[in-house]
Amino acid sequence: MANSASGDSMLDRLVRVLESFDTGRPTQTIADLARRADLPLSTAYRFVGELVERGLLERDESGEVRIGMHLWELTTRGSRALELRRLALPSMGRVQARLREHTQLAVLEGDSALFIERLSGASSGANITRVAGRLPLHASSSGLVLLAYAPAEVRERILAGPLLPVADETITDPDQLRRTLAHVRERGHVRALGSIEHHSLGIAVPVDDGSGRVIAALSAVLPREYPNPDAALAVLVRGAKEITAAIAGREGVAN
Amino acid sequence: MANSASGDSMLDRLVRVLESFDTGRPTQTIADLARRADLPLSTAYRFVGELVERGLLERDESGEVRIGMHLWELTTRGSRALELRRLALPSMGRVQARLREHTQLAVLEGDSALFIERLSGASSGANITRVAGRLPLHASSSGLVLLAYAPAEVRERILAGPLLPVADETITDPDQLRRTLAHVRERGHVRALGSIEHHSLGIAVPVDDGSGRVIAALSAVLPREYPNPDAALAVLVRGAKEITAAIAGREGVAN
Repeated sequence: MANSASGDSMLDRLVRVLESFDTGRPTQTIADLARRADLPLSTAYRFVGELVERGLLERDESGEVRIGMHLWELTTRGSRALELRRLALPSMGRVQARLREHTQLAVLEGDSALFIERLSGASSGANITRVAGRLPLHASSSGLVLLAYAPAEVRERILAGPLLPVADETITDPDQLRRTLAHVRERGHVRALGSIEHHSLGIAVPVDDGSGRVIAALSAVLPREYPNPDAALAVLVRGAKEITAAIAGREGVAN
Repeated sequence: MANSASGDSMLDRLVRVLESFDTGRPTQTIADLARRADLPLSTAYRFVGELVERGLLERDESGEVRIGMHLWELTTRGSRALELRRLALPSMGRVQARLREHTQLAVLEGDSALFIERLSGASSGANITRVAGRLPLHASSSGLVLLAYAPAEVRERILAGPLLPVADETITDPDQLRRTLAHVRERGHVRALGSIEHHSLGIAVPVDDGSGRVIAALSAVLPREYPNPDAALAVLVRGAKEITAAIAGREGVAN
């Protein structure tokens, strides 16, 4: 790999530039990008120019830049997220239509739950989750399911902490977290009350790929006072089974 | 930009590597990747290793590689496609629930219609469209709408040809295409019968951003013998209005 004089590889620079964008900050000036990506301004201008030329970034009328539609295209068309999402979307639509609450699909990515889809109705309440956004494994209902079925080394790494509180009711004690994960594996679901936001109840179930391997978590974010969480759980369990059937019907889909 | 001895820039190599993946080919061996991306095998191995290290590509158990979930995440969370899709999805869901046929959203990208979302029911017929897939502007109903409202230079470039046939009924005569585009602008919709596939009728309408600028096409792919295409058109027109309202409710969303 060709490096600059500073030993900073082009790929590392590219990753820092891509990381400087976010759902809450889809466009930025080149000066802001340079600061966030830790690049000299002149380097940032030249590099952005090269990325824009190839459709990896786009410049809008005001001169701000954003992720290019062509990069989205290249990344999405071959991605595991798209394939899993495509197979899950019909079932997720039925779950959302029945619950009329946020319905989400997450996968384990690094040490987080990465959300690859979220469906919400007009009447659904506030929800911190974003498509392509992350939540901590120990705090979110999806994360607890993914962690319960994660490889042992991931589980032990997370249990070793730190387990930062996201809300008042986040589990931050490793022993309590270990017990919770054992319960998730016994019962095949989790209810996380107020662990991300005080007013929310997250319910999540595992989605397996048909061979018994858990590859995703299907979850709903309900208001804390939701009248019938057992019924919601039953809808999610059925949705997860449908997604498994859709995955198992296709070879080589979910990994 | 640091170049290799051959003058091939790292970014160009990266783009070729990303382009070597496709919806129909989400995983590939490094040897295939090297051939498709026009890289010496040893370079491909080293480059893939560096991309895997940063989460831009992933290696599966068999040693094949695919687009990394982290690259999907970085690209999706800041993308215009995600934002437009998020605003359009509720309306698209209602259109799909009423028509029970493929419902799609496309944007103009380069000289193609790029599809950023597609919803299909279990009973929908065959459909060539893929999310993050492209279709030619002159052949698809979405493309005809996007072309009708495109900047004049794009329109003239496409009209200058070549206008390749995709199916028997694709418009390949520039004069006929020019008349069709004028009709689209007059009527605010297009019906393309058999222009992509003989058995399909595409109906598409423009989606504007609330300021009168067309930023996308909403379309349905119906069977050729669909009983009531006028009713389907009315559903699409209403869906497009809802999407415009959703976009106009947010500032700076759709570009």
